[in-house]
Amino acid sequence: MPRVGVFDSGFGGLTVQRAILGALPWVDTVYLGDTARLPYGTKSAATVTQYAVRNARLLVRHDIDLLVVACNTASAVALPALRAELKIPILGVVEPGAAVAARSSSTGRIGVIGTVGTVASGAYQKAIRRARPEAEVVARPCPLFVPLVEEGWTDPEDGVVRAVVGRYLEPFRGEGVDTLVLGCTHYPLLARAIAAELPGVRLVDSAEAIAEEVLARFPKEARVGSHRFLVTDSPEKFLAVAGLFLGCEVEAAEHVDV
Amino acid sequence: MPRVGVFDSGFGGLTVQRAILGALPWVDTVYLGDTARLPYGTKSAATVTQYAVRNARLLVRHDIDLLVVACNTASAVALPALRAELKIPILGVVEPGAAVAARSSSTGRIGVIGTVGTVASGAYQKAIRRARPEAEVVARPCPLFVPLVEEGWTDPEDGVVRAVVGRYLEPFRGEGVDTLVLGCTHYPLLARAIAAELPGVRLVDSAEAIAEEVLARFPKEARVGSHRFLVTDSPEKFLAVAGLFLGCEVEAAEHVDV
Repeated sequence: MPRVGVFDSGFGGLTVQRAILGALPWVDTVYLGDTARLPYGTKSAATVTQYAVRNARLLVRHDIDLLVVACNTASAVALPALRAELKIPILGVVEPGAAVAARSSSTGRIGVIGTVGTVASGAYQKAIRRARPEAEVVARPCPLFVPLVEEGWTDPEDGVVRAVVGRYLEPFRGEGVDTLVLGCTHYPLLARAIAAELPGVRLVDSAEAIAEEVLARFPKEARVGSHRFLVTDSPEKFLAVAGLFLGCEVEAAEHVDV
Repeated sequence: MPRVGVFDSGFGGLTVQRAILGALPWVDTVYLGDTARLPYGTKSAATVTQYAVRNARLLVRHDIDLLVVACNTASAVALPALRAELKIPILGVVEPGAAVAARSSSTGRIGVIGTVGTVASGAYQKAIRRARPEAEVVARPCPLFVPLVEEGWTDPEDGVVRAVVGRYLEPFRGEGVDTLVLGCTHYPLLARAIAAELPGVRLVDSAEAIAEEVLARFPKEARVGSHRFLVTDSPEKFLAVAGLFLGCEVEAAEHVDV
């Protein structure tokens, strides 16, 4: 039975987990949320890489066949270190999201939003240009989006949501951008508010793009997978928030040290 | 020569460092910002306590005479563990801030804002009632204030600042609250925006309150102190932001593992 390991800095990777469970309900998964050290998006590439390697080592001890790096920041900065260390296949969210964006844009003008770390790494910008060399990419970090989502403030009619989303998306208006990559796992929860601000722009969710890649590796089976959730901070906090991201309740999570 | 150790989850404690340097320019200081693990305010008491104890052990190895816990969340949850472990005197920011608030309120209705961890701990509420048993305390966490300050969005005229500050301070309006404790080291940078929202309410900055307590311990000397800055994430990031909180440039910071 195939077993997929998924890690993220915390909760956001559950949107990736959700897409994987939707596409491949027959695989087993082990999800690790590094909730004691979140967020990764404001931290240096060296620190994020160190955390990513520790997370991957722990998941490998759970006999996984594939590692999914659900965190955009870790995908943007830590894949070379992870590939040097691990013998199993590894997928990050940046390449699949970039490939979908490159394919779907008509104008070739593509926007990317993400954490400070993801945008500063240039990983999405490079991956989009590899897939479509003439593409023009406008990228901007949106540091308040994560705490906004974690407050549960995502309603497009909410005054705070409109003020914050409007401020960050300003640079994409009137730029001919027709495709915007939601380059952070929290951002799909703001998709309606983002769409209201940028009508007609196609939003690319890297979670869905990576689920397609996982699907291509594991043929359908007639079984229902089992799922474990591991966290580095208290399980109670994780269980309280997880449903928001996963779209269904998580019944149990185990505390681990990495 | 007296040497004071100060730790915080990251940058915010530099507002406490700033108040100490203003009141006692003759003491030496060692500041530790646990920037690789920030923020503390959203994490469990157990995890924050574990981090606080590690930070304190590192500072004790630098021969400090007094430990100042500049982080409100760590002050709220970790002082008993720190006092059980360390032989030197320890000051947290909660007691001094609560004492000033209890003394300054006329109505006895006192507001407290802070992180989720600080408010949930009840530490300010208990400390205010110890100093003034009949006080009524209204407390509210303001999770977006920290990222707002770190974006540099603090201007009271800014639309995003007004929307966010207005939303969080709503419960304090019309409650007869005449004193509000800024129970997080980032919040003094939003003082003008908070004052604009709650005119006539006295704002208590715990950083100033704790500097008074440090002053009482170290008699004035005719020298200028020296200062070291240690961080657990990259020094570059710290140096880029530190000036905002300290009010002057930090020239050098050293990376440490804790």
